[in-house]
Amino acid sequence: MTYLPPDRFFSPDPTTRSLALELYGPVANLPIISPHGHVAPRLFSDPNATFGSPADLFIIPDHYVTRMLYSQGIPLESLGVPRRDGGAVESDHRQIWRTFCQNFHLFRGTPSGIWLAHELSEVFGIDEKPCAANADRLYDLIAEKLAQPEFSPRALFKRFNLEVLSTTDAATDTLELHQSIRESWDGRIIPCFRPDGVVNLDAPNWRQNIEKLEQVTNQPITNYQSFIRALEQRREFFKAIGATATDHAALTPATAELTLVEAETIFQRALQGQLEADDATRFTAHLLMEMARMSVEDGLVMQLHPGSLRNHNEAIFQKFGLDKGCDIPLQTEYTRNLRPLLNKYGNDPRLNLLVFTLDETSYSRELATLAGHYPALKLGPPWWFHDSLNGMARYFEQVMETAGLYNTAGFNDDTRAFCSIPARHDVWRRASANWVAGLAVRHIVDLDDAHAMMNDLAVGLARRAYKL
Amino acid sequence: MTYLPPDRFFSPDPTTRSLALELYGPVANLPIISPHGHVAPRLFSDPNATFGSPADLFIIPDHYVTRMLYSQGIPLESLGVPRRDGGAVESDHRQIWRTFCQNFHLFRGTPSGIWLAHELSEVFGIDEKPCAANADRLYDLIAEKLAQPEFSPRALFKRFNLEVLSTTDAATDTLELHQSIRESWDGRIIPCFRPDGVVNLDAPNWRQNIEKLEQVTNQPITNYQSFIRALEQRREFFKAIGATATDHAALTPATAELTLVEAETIFQRALQGQLEADDATRFTAHLLMEMARMSVEDGLVMQLHPGSLRNHNEAIFQKFGLDKGCDIPLQTEYTRNLRPLLNKYGNDPRLNLLVFTLDETSYSRELATLAGHYPALKLGPPWWFHDSLNGMARYFEQVMETAGLYNTAGFNDDTRAFCSIPARHDVWRRASANWVAGLAVRHIVDLDDAHAMMNDLAVGLARRAYKL
Amino acid sequence: MTYLPPDRFFSPDPTTRSLALELYGPVANLPIISPHGHVAPRLFSDPNATFGSPADLFIIPDHYVTRMLYSQGIPLESLGVPRRDGGAVESDHRQIWRTFCQNFHLFRGTPSGIWLAHELSEVFGIDEKPCAANADRLYDLIAEKLAQPEFSPRALFKRFNLEVLSTTDAATDTLELHQSIRESWDGRIIPCFRPDGVVNLDAPNWRQNIEKLEQVTNQPITNYQSFIRALEQRREFFKAIGATATDHAALTPATAELTLVEAETIFQRALQGQLEADDATRFTAHLLMEMARMSVEDGLVMQLHPGSLRNHNEAIFQKFGLDKGCDIPLQTEYTRNLRPLLNKYGNDPRLNLLVFTLDETSYSRELATLAGHYPALKLGPPWWFHDSLNGMARYFEQVMETAGLYNTAGFNDDTRAFCSIPARHDVWRRASANWVAGLAVRHIVDLDDAHAMMNDLAVGLARRAYKL
Repeated sequence: MTYLPPDRFFSPDPTTRSLALELYGPVANLPIISPHGHVAPRLFSDPNATFGSPADLFIIPDHYVTRMLYSQGIPLESLGVPRRDGGAVESDHRQIWRTFCQNFHLFRGTPSGIWLAHELSEVFGIDEKPCAANADRLYDLIAEKLAQPEFSPRALFKRFNLEVLSTTDAATDTLELHQSIRESWDGRIIPCFRPDGVVNLDAPNWRQNIEKLEQVTNQPITNYQSFIRALEQRREFFKAIGATATDHAALTPATAELTLVEAETIFQRALQGQLEADDATRFTAHLLMEMARMSVEDGLVMQLHPGSLRNHNEAIFQKFGLDKGCDIPLQTEYTRNLRPLLNKYGNDPRLNLLVFTLDETSYSRELATLAGHYPALKLGPPWWFHDSLNGMARYFEQVMETAGLYNTAGFNDDTRAFCSIPARHDVWRRASANWVAGLAVRHIVDLDDAHAMMNDLAVGLARRAYKL
Repeated sequence: MTYLPPDRFFSPDPTTRSLALELYGPVANLPIISPHGHVAPRLFSDPNATFGSPADLFIIPDHYVTRMLYSQGIPLESLGVPRRDGGAVESDHRQIWRTFCQNFHLFRGTPSGIWLAHELSEVFGIDEKPCAANADRLYDLIAEKLAQPEFSPRALFKRFNLEVLSTTDAATDTLELHQSIRESWDGRIIPCFRPDGVVNLDAPNWRQNIEKLEQVTNQPITNYQSFIRALEQRREFFKAIGATATDHAALTPATAELTLVEAETIFQRALQGQLEADDATRFTAHLLMEMARMSVEDGLVMQLHPGSLRNHNEAIFQKFGLDKGCDIPLQTEYTRNLRPLLNKYGNDPRLNLLVFTLDETSYSRELATLAGHYPALKLGPPWWFHDSLNGMARYFEQVMETAGLYNTAGFNDDTRAFCSIPARHDVWRRASANWVAGLAVRHIVDLDDAHAMMNDLAVGLARRAYKL
Repeated sequence: MTYLPPDRFFSPDPTTRSLALELYGPVANLPIISPHGHVAPRLFSDPNATFGSPADLFIIPDHYVTRMLYSQGIPLESLGVPRRDGGAVESDHRQIWRTFCQNFHLFRGTPSGIWLAHELSEVFGIDEKPCAANADRLYDLIAEKLAQPEFSPRALFKRFNLEVLSTTDAATDTLELHQSIRESWDGRIIPCFRPDGVVNLDAPNWRQNIEKLEQVTNQPITNYQSFIRALEQRREFFKAIGATATDHAALTPATAELTLVEAETIFQRALQGQLEADDATRFTAHLLMEMARMSVEDGLVMQLHPGSLRNHNEAIFQKFGLDKGCDIPLQTEYTRNLRPLLNKYGNDPRLNLLVFTLDETSYSRELATLAGHYPALKLGPPWWFHDSLNGMARYFEQVMETAGLYNTAGFNDDTRAFCSIPARHDVWRRASANWVAGLAVRHIVDLDDAHAMMNDLAVGLARRAYKL
């Protein structure tokens, strides 16, 4: 069988399906704009970097994959996920691959199942469904290809037709790898300024992060104002290396301005390791407003990713660390929380604030209505668990009537799994074509509008939202 | 091209589409019942009233239109929206119209886009999509028509086949314009009693509103009991001028009974300008129960529209005032909040309480389950941002199974834009036909039931819910 | 007309419809697994038990039916619903049936309407829609059949092809009826351990329930530890009579561990009738964790049904008692609430925790993400008001991509209305076939996967989740 018929994912209605295919065609091979994600820059700074084994590529680092296997009782150790204490985990990558193949049915109907099928077929020419019987053969096939220079990260970057790829980098990152990429290669890989580790006073290792910030800015951080100056300096540095955006995670999207005295008082308590209850929460809310101010001044696009309760499963966090598939979404309120920031900066066209959500109930109620009013606000694409066919359909249906297409920010893949990037953008372009075709066959938009919308969905909105 | 094919908005599935068209046919031209809205009575009290320029009709007063343009950085001043301080705004209506036409792509896939296309085509015979190139020509075409007597408000009321149109009027309104309409014309335009300005103690100008209430009732309001008597008297007056309903806005649907002493104490603090925290909130919750009591006694239908955070954007409110597209919905809880009112009056068949929501999560969880139990409660139609094709589809899908069709209140347009009324009702009738056709083709209802449901959706439910 | 065409409820798209029918075929007649419900065991312990009159079977005890009639102003008295005070209610069952038939239009498009049509047709051979004109004739037809031995509960159990039926039973139940069923008949009817009446300290008659618990365990309950021992003993007893699961209702899914001293202190206050604020809430949260511990130890599957505000309508509760259609859902938070329990037991494969929700917003945000990670957690089927065609479609769409099919628990009917069981499972199997067909026609899964998924949805998932 082949997994990838040309009209996959489109409505079964023949009229809609054929129009969707017609709309998808012209955008299918447009370059990929990847303005937000977590691919490691080291894959590209070293011209000889490789992806490792099939298990390295498809399983071990991909928490979308490992969480589903773990949920069915398969220990992370048996999947080769490294332990923080260096304890033994499965080191036979062929055996890890077998476990994955034997349990491939768990991915039925999931986005991971779709991405994996796409990667196997389009990147490796494998149109078989993994199973116990073909596990070893597929392993050998993939391993053989991964050893070839055509399968190096740099080669695949070109083959994938990536116009630009943004990584996500700590405020204290020296960006040496990015500099080395720029000096040695013409692929456009840009950093994104993510200051959570120094901005969230309760971040793990906050004190060390501040010391690192002192080092990279080459100036002491002894008070709130020197801290702010250091952030401003780092933003300038990131811009110089190509960054066009910042990114901010927070438990809630609360924003609220402190007085200078309050900010200083809290910051001093943090320096002295004597945070009081709510200090970190209030400081983050204040810093989000400061970040908006800086964005107004330096033009960096501001991304806000709130609402994930990180490391819900403490045992897994203790044993394996961050990003192991146990971050769980929370109800998230935007109307009241964003009000202080939007009242101060939301009418300023110099600000480009892109807001994301894991709480889909905010789409039609809060985010579409806010984005449909404030000039500075745009809504980011369906995020994380909602980066899926149904998630996209809900997004189009619940957001667009009220926000308007032009107050959204196109697509971004937000992935660590480099080889899944084309699959994810393809799913978005197909879901977009299906949505627009549905509007056109019901005579809500005409064909001229439909084609224009497709181009914007595929590349235009993302380019403009991220100033790329 | 033509914007308005006869089967627009129906499912692309041929069987569903043709049945939807068959179901829509008999209700397409039924009279329009408009039991809740904000059209200005002065359009009808003066037989020679006109709609003004094309910009006056389509753009300047319509916050659905201006918010979308504003969200993309177009200043409200350039759209001719009047400033509170009388400062300069664009006064060339042709220029305003051009700005609108140049940006018409912003309305792709939005309900405003649908309504505007309907109005242009059905009211003005224009089947072109506005754009920079045709802006001046369309302006002239529309302006010419608006100067003709066939395009006066009274003439269009008849042409639109409006059976009844309800306005919304302050408790202190003298209803002179309504009286003058009744004396000079046979179009049925009725008032609706909206006492927010005197009931919500923190309403802007509350003290002046109370003074106005004293004047129109011709009796001093010195305590809670005289306040209640004044409200009762005004309700009687509204009934005498044709009102069948009241309307209440509130930040939340909280209801709770105060003792007489508590009510009096809070009211006295309000009179003395010494409100304490929560006074206004508690008083509104109490007054909602009082309003339910009065409805039991005088038979006026009670509408409750909670959950909008008005004037979210303070700068816009300061400069331009109310209703400029910056009211943003809030999460809204009904199960606990309505319990006191429903426990006291919800089993009384004399009460007709129609509840609306901007929080669609309450549909299947709270409102459908409450409406499917309490005899006094019915659920109003999809409101405001949800008055759209997708909003209606979600409403039908999430409400009807649990509430039952007969615990809903049909449609109302809730609009200030008189010429959009036929468009909005047509969208509802088409969305209804599409929903019912979907039930019939899946054999959930038979054809007899389907036709009966269509009649109820188009006119029957609204007539009965509003006693019209 | 006939109500029940073979392709009912499937998508109108011909390709999807025919594939859905093809997928549905092989599972249509598989045995019914009913692992959670409220059918009375007395229907089966007495070989000569009958269902009574048509009103006894279809109307009087079915709060799905009576709530809809009541919501339109039909008094429960006129439907024969018994009053707690023994006051007069309609005793002419033919008259009750007439009222039901005259108002059958209220069930248009509702799940009750679908179930009733199925029961009339499949169980009684009646393919007419009830109405005023045929009410008496239908009454006689049904009454005649109900008098025949082929329509006894035991006979219908066999005819319905029930493999297993679980009842729900208080922790203090002697299970005599179950024992008598086991001794006299081969139908598999098993109890389920529901300890709400002794675990929730604010349950009505808690003190008497504890006394009853003392009697059935034949040991005094004077402190927390003897209480826990009694519960453990009862669980063992239920297991011995065939139980494989427990069931727990709670206002919220809060879980939190008390110290032994705290638990003892609160329990003593309860024994002395001196509960303090929050005692009951904290004790329930603690007991849920204790129940998880016991499940780890004794292997009973743990079901959690939170989020219903029982007896919202106090007047109805006073007059008619529990379960009269006035339980209303609440917003329900799972991410933080379940965290203590999941952190302690969620990684333990010996625990099988099945969580239900009445708050559909938790599907994609919280429950699918939790179930897609924790090995011990699975998501129960769409519950109560969401046990409907649209409710199932939303469940499939919002849950499956993130949770994965194999972290869900199949279907259960949760009904008191024995004759509706085949109808409810048929709706689930049809809705499942429609969902899977939709995946297959869009090439998201292939046909092999589709058939395997159907088998799991119809019987496999429920068998495994409930260890049946």
